[in-house]
Amino acid sequence: MDSDYGIPRELSDLQKIRSLYQPELPPCLQGTTVRVEFGDGTTTADPTDALTISRAFPNTYGYPLAHFLRATAKVPDAQIITEHPPMRVGIVFCGRQSPGGHNVIWGLHNALKIHNPQSVLLGFLGGSEGLFAQKTLEITDSILSTYKNQGGYDLLGRTKDQIRTIEQVNAALAACNNLKLDGLVIIGGVTSNTDAAQLAETFAVKKCPTKVVGVPVTLNGDLKNQFVETNVGFDTICKVNSQLISNMCTDALSAEKYYYFIRLMGRKASHVALECTLQSHPNMVILGEEVAASKLTLSEIAKQITDAVQARAEQDKYHGVILLPEGLIESIPEVYALLKEIHGLLRQGVAVEKISSQLTPWASALFEFLPPFIRRELLLYPESDDSAQLSQIETEKLLAYLVEAEINKRTKEGTYKGKKFNAICHFFGYQARGSLPSKFDCDYAYVLGHICYHILAAGLNGYMATVTNLKNPVNKWKCGAAPIAAMMTVKRWSPNPGATSIGKPAIHPATVDLRGKAYELLRQNAQSFLMDDIYRNPGPLQFDGSGADAKVITLSVEDQDYMGRIKKLQEYLEQVRTIVKPGCPQEVLKAALSVMASVTEVLAAMSTSSSNTLSAL
Amino acid sequence: MDSDYGIPRELSDLQKIRSLYQPELPPCLQGTTVRVEFGDGTTTADPTDALTISRAFPNTYGYPLAHFLRATAKVPDAQIITEHPPMRVGIVFCGRQSPGGHNVIWGLHNALKIHNPQSVLLGFLGGSEGLFAQKTLEITDSILSTYKNQGGYDLLGRTKDQIRTIEQVNAALAACNNLKLDGLVIIGGVTSNTDAAQLAETFAVKKCPTKVVGVPVTLNGDLKNQFVETNVGFDTICKVNSQLISNMCTDALSAEKYYYFIRLMGRKASHVALECTLQSHPNMVILGEEVAASKLTLSEIAKQITDAVQARAEQDKYHGVILLPEGLIESIPEVYALLKEIHGLLRQGVAVEKISSQLTPWASALFEFLPPFIRRELLLYPESDDSAQLSQIETEKLLAYLVEAEINKRTKEGTYKGKKFNAICHFFGYQARGSLPSKFDCDYAYVLGHICYHILAAGLNGYMATVTNLKNPVNKWKCGAAPIAAMMTVKRWSPNPGATSIGKPAIHPATVDLRGKAYELLRQNAQSFLMDDIYRNPGPLQFDGSGADAKVITLSVEDQDYMGRIKKLQEYLEQVRTIVKPGCPQEVLKAALSVMASVTEVLAAMSTSSSNTLSAL
Repeated sequence: MDSDYGIPRELSDLQKIRSLYQPELPPCLQGTTVRVEFGDGTTTADPTDALTISRAFPNTYGYPLAHFLRATAKVPDAQIITEHPPMRVGIVFCGRQSPGGHNVIWGLHNALKIHNPQSVLLGFLGGSEGLFAQKTLEITDSILSTYKNQGGYDLLGRTKDQIRTIEQVNAALAACNNLKLDGLVIIGGVTSNTDAAQLAETFAVKKCPTKVVGVPVTLNGDLKNQFVETNVGFDTICKVNSQLISNMCTDALSAEKYYYFIRLMGRKASHVALECTLQSHPNMVILGEEVAASKLTLSEIAKQITDAVQARAEQDKYHGVILLPEGLIESIPEVYALLKEIHGLLRQGVAVEKISSQLTPWASALFEFLPPFIRRELLLYPESDDSAQLSQIETEKLLAYLVEAEINKRTKEGTYKGKKFNAICHFFGYQARGSLPSKFDCDYAYVLGHICYHILAAGLNGYMATVTNLKNPVNKWKCGAAPIAAMMTVKRWSPNPGATSIGKPAIHPATVDLRGKAYELLRQNAQSFLMDDIYRNPGPLQFDGSGADAKVITLSVEDQDYMGRIKKLQEYLEQVRTIVKPGCPQEVLKAALSVMASVTEVLAAMSTSSSNTLSAL
Repeated sequence: MDSDYGIPRELSDLQKIRSLYQPELPPCLQGTTVRVEFGDGTTTADPTDALTISRAFPNTYGYPLAHFLRATAKVPDAQIITEHPPMRVGIVFCGRQSPGGHNVIWGLHNALKIHNPQSVLLGFLGGSEGLFAQKTLEITDSILSTYKNQGGYDLLGRTKDQIRTIEQVNAALAACNNLKLDGLVIIGGVTSNTDAAQLAETFAVKKCPTKVVGVPVTLNGDLKNQFVETNVGFDTICKVNSQLISNMCTDALSAEKYYYFIRLMGRKASHVALECTLQSHPNMVILGEEVAASKLTLSEIAKQITDAVQARAEQDKYHGVILLPEGLIESIPEVYALLKEIHGLLRQGVAVEKISSQLTPWASALFEFLPPFIRRELLLYPESDDSAQLSQIETEKLLAYLVEAEINKRTKEGTYKGKKFNAICHFFGYQARGSLPSKFDCDYAYVLGHICYHILAAGLNGYMATVTNLKNPVNKWKCGAAPIAAMMTVKRWSPNPGATSIGKPAIHPATVDLRGKAYELLRQNAQSFLMDDIYRNPGPLQFDGSGADAKVITLSVEDQDYMGRIKKLQEYLEQVRTIVKPGCPQEVLKAALSVMASVTEVLAAMSTSSSNTLSAL
C-alpha cells in the first residue's frame, strides 16, 4: 500500500481549479524575515491546576506566548531571526481526518523552502504507525500538486490516534533521532496535541534535539481555549452538514408528513450540532451539554420531543427536523452508567450474550427497557479512548422509537389527537469528513503550516501554532504560538467521600459553553425555530462568488481574540512604565499607585471567583 | 397550515443571490411570437402496444409532435399564433419533491404574463388534495420572489401522488370547471404524467375545455423515452449525492479501515446510482437492473461483494465504498416474491406477528434466514404504488451483515486470511431532495414552464413539455411537446400458460439500459474502480465560476436529441418531395424509387426486429 501514497491522481474539473487556489498569508508571515515577540510566561486557565501541570511538564510549562510580527512592526524587543540553516522536519497526521489537513503540510513545506531551499520535509506514511516504523515520504511540490486544497488525509494516511505508551514514545524518539529531525509537527485534535506536549517534554528530558509542534486540526471543533479560536476542518464540516440539514428541512416542509431525526458527528462536545442549528434553523436540537447539565433521563428527552410534536400537531404541522449529536447517548447519565458497566464487563472478558445477566439490577432494568437494536449496539466493544462506538449507536432511531411509543400512549389516553407520527432517521456521519475544504479552512491550515516553521525557527518546543482574530479577513489575522501545557486542565473526582483523585493533565475537549453567546443565540430563537419553520438554507459550499467567504456563525458571534488582547494589555503596562519612570512628578506616581492598587484588587477578586467557578464545574 | 404557503421567508446570503439568478431562454422562446410546427402523427416505441393505447386514448393518441420555433425560422407551414387572449391556468405539484420544481411555476407565470398580463396562474395548495378541494393561491411575482431557483416544493406543498380513482378524476374535473381553467399543468414523474394523460382523455370525453399538460420533474430520472432526455431534479440529486459519495471515498482512503455501504435513492431504476458512480468512481455499485437481468440471489450478491473485499485484502486494502440503490432489494427475485407474499397477507388483514407462520415454505425459509432487523422492515405495509417501503428497508445493512458472515466463514475455512472486515452503513435518502437546484435544473425547469404556456396557446391537450439537445448550451436547446400517450407502453404477463394478461397503458419507469453507452462506460472501468481506488470528487454544487455549468455524465455520453433527428428526417423527406416533383426527369424518379425502396425495406426489417426485442423484454 505504501507505494500508493503521494501518487498523482485524477482530479475532477472543480478539484483541478481548487488545486490552483493560492491561500493568502497575513502580512506578518510575508517575506523571509521572522520577528518574534515573547510575552509573559503562561499559566493555565484554572490556577488550581497550575502546580500539577508544572510538575508534569517541568521543561515545557510556563514558557511565554510567542507573537509573530511583521518585519516592519515597531516592537523594540522583538527578536529578528536572520539565520535560517537548513532544517529537517517530520510531519504526521494523527487523529481523525479533517478537511484542510493537507494544507498544513503545504504551508509548512512552502515556508521551509522559502527560508532555505535545502530544508527537507518528511511526511510519515500511515499516521503514527508510520512514525514508529520510520516510514517516510519526502514532500515535494510535485507530490503536493494534486493534494493542495483537497480534502482527506490520503496524501499520507493515518492509523491509530495515539503516541502515548512507553513503546510508542520510544519509537517516536528513535525515529526523530535516526532521521535527525529538527522538528516534528503533529496534526490533530485534543488527544494528539496532548500527546504532542508529552512527547515534547520527554524529548526535552532525554536531550533529543527535535522540537515538537502541535497543530489544532479537528472537525469536532472542541480544541478551544484562550489561545485557540477554532480548528481546521470545523468550518467545512459545519457547512457541508448545514447544507444537508437545510435540504432535509426543505424536504420536510414540502412533503409535510415526516419528522426527520438526524444524528450528527460530535462526541463529547456538540459544537457541530450548535453551529448547524444556527445555520439551518431546524425545529429542534438536543445538545449533549444541555442533557448533562440538567441530568435529563432518556424518558424525559423523549417526552420533551413528544411535547414538541404534540404542540406542532395542534397547529396542524406533522413534519419537522430534529438534530442530535452522536455523543448525546453518553451524556444521558443513566445510559452513561449502563455503558460503563457493560464496558467493564466486556473488558473482563465476559461474553456478549452473558452481559445482560451480570448487570446491576437498575442497569439491567434500563437495558431490558431498550429496544433490541439498541441493546445490540450498546454491547459493542468500546473504542480506544474508552468511549462507546458512537458511530454505531443509532440514538436517532432510539429517540424516534420512544417518541412513537409515547405518542401512541397519549393517543390511547386521548391526550394526543393528531395524525400519525412518522419518523425517518438519518446519520450524517462520514459524508462531510472527506469534503473539499472551504476557503476558510484552506487559508487557516496553510497559515498554520507557515507558523509551524516560525515556531521551529525560533527554537520553541511543546508549542501549538495559533491564529487569532479569525473572524476578520486574513490580512487582520494574528499569528502566534502558545505552550500546549498552558491549554491543559486537570480532572478531579471523588471516588469516595473525603478522598479526591486527580487525573493526568491533558487538553480536554471544550464543550459548548451554556453561558456563551452562541448558545444564547440558540436559546433566544429556540421557540421560533420549533414552531415557525423558519428554515434557512446556507446552500452548498461555494468556492467562488457570493458565499465563498462565509464564516461559521459561532466564530463571528463569540468575541475571542485572546492573543490580541494579551498583547494590547502588555502595551498598556509598558506605557504606564514609560510614563511613570523614576524622576516623574510625585503626583503622577501617587495617582498611578492608587489606580493600580484598585485595579489589582478587582482583578484578584475576579480571578479567585472564576477559579472557584471553574473548580465547581 | 394553508396560510403558511407562499409566505416570504428568510433566505441565507447564497439563497438571496440565487433568487436573483435569471435563467436563459433558448432563442425559440424569446419574444412574444409563438411559432409551432407540427410533425407527423406519433406512434409508440413498441408498435404492438399501439392498438391498445389508441383504444384507451381515442381523443389524445396519435397526435403530432409540436416543435416551437424562432419567430424568424424559415419553416413555411409553421403556424404563427398571434392572438393571446387572457388565460386561466392551474398548476399542481404531484409526486415527490424534486429540485427545480419551483422554476416550472416561475417559467409558466412569466410566459403567461408576457403574452397577456390579464392571464392568471393559480397554484393548488397541498398537491393533488388541494386540486380536489379547489384550494388555490394566485401566483404573483412577489410570491415567487423567495422561491425562484430554490429547492423543495414548499411554495405550494404536495400530498398524495395520485389523480386516478373515479372520485379523484371527478374532483379534478369539477375543480377545472369551477375555476374556469383553460389549462391544468401537472408537475411530476411517471405516475403523475400517466395520470395527466388519463385526465386529458377524460376531459376530452367530457367536453371539459381545460387542456392538461405534463412536465417531467422527478429526481429518479426514470421518465426517459424518445422524447424526454432527462428530468428536472436529476442533475441536482446526482451532483449532491456524488459530492457526498466522493467525500466518503476520500474518507475511506484516509483511514483505510472501513468499508462504507451506501444506499441511494432510486426505486425501480438505478439511474442515480449509475450517474454517481461515473462521477465519483467508488469501488463498486450494484444496479437493480443487473441483478434483475442476471437473476442473482441475495447470497450470490453477498458473495460477489465478499470476493471483491477478499481481492482487495490480498492487495492489503481494507477500505472501500459500495453503492446500492434502495430499489435493489425488490430487484432480487426471491426477495421480491417474499415481499409479494407478505404484502398479500398484510392486505388480507393478517396481523404482523402472524405473517411469518402463514408464508409458503420457501418464503418462510428465506424469511427466517434474514436477520431480525430486516424481517421487521420487510413486514411494513406497502406504499400506495404497491412497492415496499424502500426508504425504511436497510438493504445496505443486510448486505454488510451477509458479507461479514461470509468473511467469517471464509476465515474459519482458511480461504480468507486478511484483517477484520469493518462496515459502516449510510442511507443517502432525503438529504439531496430539498437541495438548491443546480443551474441546469433551474434553466431546464424554467424553460419547461415557458413551453407549458406555448402548448396551451396552441390548444394542445394531453401533451408533455419537452426540451431536447440538452447536453448543449441553452441557446442550442430544442423546445417541443409530445403526446403523453406516445410515451406509454403496455405490460404483458402470463398468469398461466396459454393465457396472456395485459396491463393498462402507462408510462413505465425507464430502467438503466444495460446495452446503453453510460452502462458500457461503467463496465469498461469497473475493474479499475474496484481495485485501483481512482476516486474522483466532483465537489459541492457550484453556482459561480468553474463547475457551475457541469452536466451529468449520462446525459453527455448518451447521444439523444430524438426530436432534433425527427425534424431533420422531415426536412430530408421534404427535400426528396421537392426534387422529385411531377415533371422531373424519368431517371431522377427511377433513382428515387430505387433508393427509397431499399431504404424502406431496411427500416421495416429493423423496426420488426426491435419490436420483437422489446416484446421479449
